[in-house]
Amino acid sequence: MQHVKAYCFDVFGTVVNWREGVARDARTFFEKYGATHCDAHEFADRWRSLYQPAMQACRSGARPFVRLDILHRENLETVLNEYGLDVPAIAEADLTELNRAWHRLDPWPDVVEGLTRLKQRHIIAPASNGNIAIMVDIAKRAGLPWDAILGAEVTQAYKPAPDAYTRMTEVLDLQPREVCMVAAHNDDLEAAQACGLSTAFVARPSEHGPGQTTNLEPSGQWDVIASDFIDLARRAG
Amino acid sequence: MQHVKAYCFDVFGTVVNWREGVARDARTFFEKYGATHCDAHEFADRWRSLYQPAMQACRSGARPFVRLDILHRENLETVLNEYGLDVPAIAEADLTELNRAWHRLDPWPDVVEGLTRLKQRHIIAPASNGNIAIMVDIAKRAGLPWDAILGAEVTQAYKPAPDAYTRMTEVLDLQPREVCMVAAHNDDLEAAQACGLSTAFVARPSEHGPGQTTNLEPSGQWDVIASDFIDLARRAG
Repeated sequence: MQHVKAYCFDVFGTVVNWREGVARDARTFFEKYGATHCDAHEFADRWRSLYQPAMQACRSGARPFVRLDILHRENLETVLNEYGLDVPAIAEADLTELNRAWHRLDPWPDVVEGLTRLKQRHIIAPASNGNIAIMVDIAKRAGLPWDAILGAEVTQAYKPAPDAYTRMTEVLDLQPREVCMVAAHNDDLEAAQACGLSTAFVARPSEHGPGQTTNLEPSGQWDVIASDFIDLARRAG
Repeated sequence: MQHVKAYCFDVFGTVVNWREGVARDARTFFEKYGATHCDAHEFADRWRSLYQPAMQACRSGARPFVRLDILHRENLETVLNEYGLDVPAIAEADLTELNRAWHRLDPWPDVVEGLTRLKQRHIIAPASNGNIAIMVDIAKRAGLPWDAILGAEVTQAYKPAPDAYTRMTEVLDLQPREVCMVAAHNDDLEAAQACGLSTAFVARPSEHGPGQTTNLEPSGQWDVIASDFIDLARRAG
């Protein structure tokens, strides 16, 4: 991995625990609106499940690129309707605040130390489908020491579209193999590898809660398999 | 300034001393190519003088947006020709290295301390016409603690075009007045203010060398006039 100059990270699931963070803020919201019968974790899972189809509309060209905050908001209203809440009766400020749950996600315990070590000799940046404001807010709140905020809003392409990876290497003025994609999701690494990037897998076996069945193990020939970000920094040298 | 959440900085001149940095690397280049009669500071000034016309072609729509590294490289060949150097005879690696002089610029002495203080309570980011790789490389080398790299490559617009400012506030998910443009150049602040941004002027009286005659004083009604970045951080609170 001596040739790698930049480590670029998937964020939702790999860097932060989105399910617990969204459930925490959803619970507060449900209490305010008398909907405490709603399961906050199920709600988080359902909201997240609309993420890929929403991005697919942009990937396919059916709609122009729009940032994730906007897709999240559209999906939020869909899910609240499914849960039987009267969306027009909800205060706009409360919808905005709940949508900003994605700006207030906590990192896994190894993240800050691992990134801080990696940053000493490498460029580190998120390569998330989340937009820049989400990434900046998460980083400020959690102390993530990114060198830059890359990702979908910079490349105007949602992973796993090839443009999301190749434009990132161009923006960094690096060769593809000099950029290592780090993710807890094998499909993200598969797409990055197809574009010539280096790859590192870090399992996050509780991303989807106690019953997780996917991405428990690496399923491809990744350049690095690390147990967490501290281990990744050690292997990066 | 209590409403300001993000400070966004002009970089060439305001954060870094481009003239000395470019002259330093030009001198090394001239020595290698036996052109020590060339004045490195004059060369830096001439190279820089082609900056605005090159961006104007993008601003006017005469050519699509291209990142500054590419404009710099085109202008470099123009200036080397003017200086009588045989550009096709120069090694490609040496042209690339000289073009990367803009990636190796030193900050003014107050910058790291000022930014570090500002970062405690505010988002800080470059809002430069320089592309992301230039900004990341300068920051890594000098230890500039940016929260994000914004600027022309993110907004796909060169200052002082209004899109360069308004898209930046949209990317940050902030109101224009919540974003303060910091610059040593009155025209940059004038354009930012016209878009509703807050403004801060920091004079850099030796940006253009000992004979500088422009931007020695603030010429508009800026929200803050600071003597340097440490003073700016103090006034930001």
